[in-house]
Amino acid sequence: MSKRLEGRRVIVTDADDFMGPDVVTLFQEEGAEVIADRRDLTAPSAAENLIKEAGRVDVLVANLAATFSGELVQQIEDAELDLMYDRLVRPLHKLTRAVLPQMVERRAGKIVVVGSAVALKGTPRRAAYAAARGAQHAYVRTVGAEVAAFGVNVNATGQSFVENPTYFPPEYQATDEFRTRIKQVPAGRLSTGREAAQFLMFLAGPESGFFFGQIFAYSGGWTV
Amino acid sequence: MSKRLEGRRVIVTDADDFMGPDVVTLFQEEGAEVIADRRDLTAPSAAENLIKEAGRVDVLVANLAATFSGELVQQIEDAELDLMYDRLVRPLHKLTRAVLPQMVERRAGKIVVVGSAVALKGTPRRAAYAAARGAQHAYVRTVGAEVAAFGVNVNATGQSFVENPTYFPPEYQATDEFRTRIKQVPAGRLSTGREAAQFLMFLAGPESGFFFGQIFAYSGGWTV
Amino acid sequence: MSKRLEGRRVIVTDADDFMGPDVVTLFQEEGAEVIADRRDLTAPSAAENLIKEAGRVDVLVANLAATFSGELVQQIEDAELDLMYDRLVRPLHKLTRAVLPQMVERRAGKIVVVGSAVALKGTPRRAAYAAARGAQHAYVRTVGAEVAAFGVNVNATGQSFVENPTYFPPEYQATDEFRTRIKQVPAGRLSTGREAAQFLMFLAGPESGFFFGQIFAYSGGWTV
Amino acid sequence: MSKRLEGRRVIVTDADDFMGPDVVTLFQEEGAEVIADRRDLTAPSAAENLIKEAGRVDVLVANLAATFSGELVQQIEDAELDLMYDRLVRPLHKLTRAVLPQMVERRAGKIVVVGSAVALKGTPRRAAYAAARGAQHAYVRTVGAEVAAFGVNVNATGQSFVENPTYFPPEYQATDEFRTRIKQVPAGRLSTGREAAQFLMFLAGPESGFFFGQIFAYSGGWTV
Repeated sequence: MSKRLEGRRVIVTDADDFMGPDVVTLFQEEGAEVIADRRDLTAPSAAENLIKEAGRVDVLVANLAATFSGELVQQIEDAELDLMYDRLVRPLHKLTRAVLPQMVERRAGKIVVVGSAVALKGTPRRAAYAAARGAQHAYVRTVGAEVAAFGVNVNATGQSFVENPTYFPPEYQATDEFRTRIKQVPAGRLSTGREAAQFLMFLAGPESGFFFGQIFAYSGGWTV
Repeated sequence: MSKRLEGRRVIVTDADDFMGPDVVTLFQEEGAEVIADRRDLTAPSAAENLIKEAGRVDVLVANLAATFSGELVQQIEDAELDLMYDRLVRPLHKLTRAVLPQMVERRAGKIVVVGSAVALKGTPRRAAYAAARGAQHAYVRTVGAEVAAFGVNVNATGQSFVENPTYFPPEYQATDEFRTRIKQVPAGRLSTGREAAQFLMFLAGPESGFFFGQIFAYSGGWTV
Repeated sequence: MSKRLEGRRVIVTDADDFMGPDVVTLFQEEGAEVIADRRDLTAPSAAENLIKEAGRVDVLVANLAATFSGELVQQIEDAELDLMYDRLVRPLHKLTRAVLPQMVERRAGKIVVVGSAVALKGTPRRAAYAAARGAQHAYVRTVGAEVAAFGVNVNATGQSFVENPTYFPPEYQATDEFRTRIKQVPAGRLSTGREAAQFLMFLAGPESGFFFGQIFAYSGGWTV
Repeated sequence: MSKRLEGRRVIVTDADDFMGPDVVTLFQEEGAEVIADRRDLTAPSAAENLIKEAGRVDVLVANLAATFSGELVQQIEDAELDLMYDRLVRPLHKLTRAVLPQMVERRAGKIVVVGSAVALKGTPRRAAYAAARGAQHAYVRTVGAEVAAFGVNVNATGQSFVENPTYFPPEYQATDEFRTRIKQVPAGRLSTGREAAQFLMFLAGPESGFFFGQIFAYSGGWTV
């Protein structure tokens, strides 16, 4: 049996953050030719350059990370809101705009946005972060509907409670806040990064061809 | 590489209807030991007997079918409402109640309910059918949350615009009604049954372990 | 200023249960001519008779109640599932079918279904009840879309954490289960029945004319 | 009977745009003391100054408007994305941050965000606009959950197909694009601005006390 991403050229952004490490590892195991990118995508032309250098791109995994303060909304400064926007929203548009033309032309391609369940369920102390993640979801719905007719699949997850170096590192798992929060998750446990990467592989792979602009919660039942 | 459902014992109900044929074929190709059941599940004890006869069940694909009149709500008779309930809701509960104890005991197992997108988006002339499909979704959310702590995954699709012998047979695809409806689907086409079965396989397989009580639209962007 | 339901003829079913008492009181204060019905709507022809006797009906408040066992899904008997269906789903259809023709003919009218948030959020030990409440919601979406063109508004709430004699009576509020549950509600308190009735009045009144087939969570933030 | 917003001090931002004119008129009729603001909220300190000048604020109607290009996503420039963010997202946070402390202190207050249904349903040619409107919704969910315990109600609409000078002016209603779009709306018509303002009044008034962080579609059934 052939590997599930055999021969696919896949860009993974922010490859050291969030779902980057697990996605790169799994996708390579499944035969993908992975471009694991680590550049700062807030720099002018960075997104455009990445796509240009990559040549043919079958799959873009828009894995974008930014860390939030965890403050109450009254304490969240403009700088934090702007940072979320600069790291999570602007690069998503720049990457999408740069990569879509080749996908539309070939009438094939996938954009998988790694999003957050915080945009799906109101969670105190996440106002700026949630806003940017919500922007991603609405963007995906719109673009997904727009390019569906060309056979290009643009979809997103809304994940939480997944082990990853950015949002659920070992040191956070040792806190009381974490222990309180995990009790509210029906699963009663974190997902491993690999499990979550498997769902991203489903979205990136040949079997997701009838999904367009959809947001998939991935949260151990927390959003159900 | 091993097959994706290698060694799993899977029940598929109403095996000649709805997603039955495509699920049976694909799951067998992927190594599952499939019990393709065709009995009338409205008969007393039918659901209980099926589970008893099956012995170990790793996956239950609750693929239940019933055809609706397509009448306006003022013309829908009690008999149609009752039929939908008898075919789509009662057997789901009887099957679930019969199969869950062994899954809970083994702390492993999957129930995949093949549902309808009509329960997700208001669609004229489907009142009785939509009600029963909506009952399935709410049931799945509740049971999914209830058994999550035991590592049992209960999830459902809400599908539409998928080729299958029950709801989108070739003769329906030749109607004007169909041609009007398909224009409202961003995909602009039907899903093949096999494509849809691949997503059901994802839910039935080892990679869906962090989903509990979730409803997945599968509709070519129609519900987005 | 005139009262908000001045001159409207309103049926309220199960008038002693669930939201019945608060709706009847408030709607009468606001000028409605309320037909507070208490008959058993599971009896043959009961729903049809109610509508026939009522004559002109401007608003139907489909307030239907049934109490559940609170058992785990493995312990829920067919009789409970059937009871939920018989009390919550069948009467809704019979009432709707009987009252819609006059509303469609006048191109005016409102059906307000008092539903449950349990159909919106997976809640353990509510499988049969949630299924019936989910059927109501899907039914409302479908019928709401179907009769929108006639200017008839069919909508529902999905409420929880509201004081009422059926689901949140004083004795339940004294239990540990209740005290645990209320902590998970952002509001941190129950809604009074009157507050909830005010939202139902909004849906029943002249200001809800652009809502069709919509489900409104009413739960103190529990579903957000 | 007293007026419904008697004695309430209400800020309405962008008072000449979007829902501004209808909200100001209706709220004044209903007894509110309306501060109809027209300043450019993208200017530094503009939001803070508005709140400071206003003194006591019982209700903030965050009515923020920005017009989009209507281009396909490949043609949407960074400047448009930034403009949407600068007009729809940043001022919402600045206003919220400035006004919440007095509401939290009094344990009373309402923030009503006039949002767009484009954030709820994938709509081609709206990528940048939808992203900003999606950010608003996720922000509202988060802040709504965060301040619920203080009795402050933060909620939003997701509206479309409402007559207003910004998005559905008479000249747009004369286009073929409009005529095609309105056919997809179950209502088959636009809402008047006054009807929509009545729902905003419900959210701004004394009867919305049990809603926290909720998004209300208002779209003539288009999102159902």
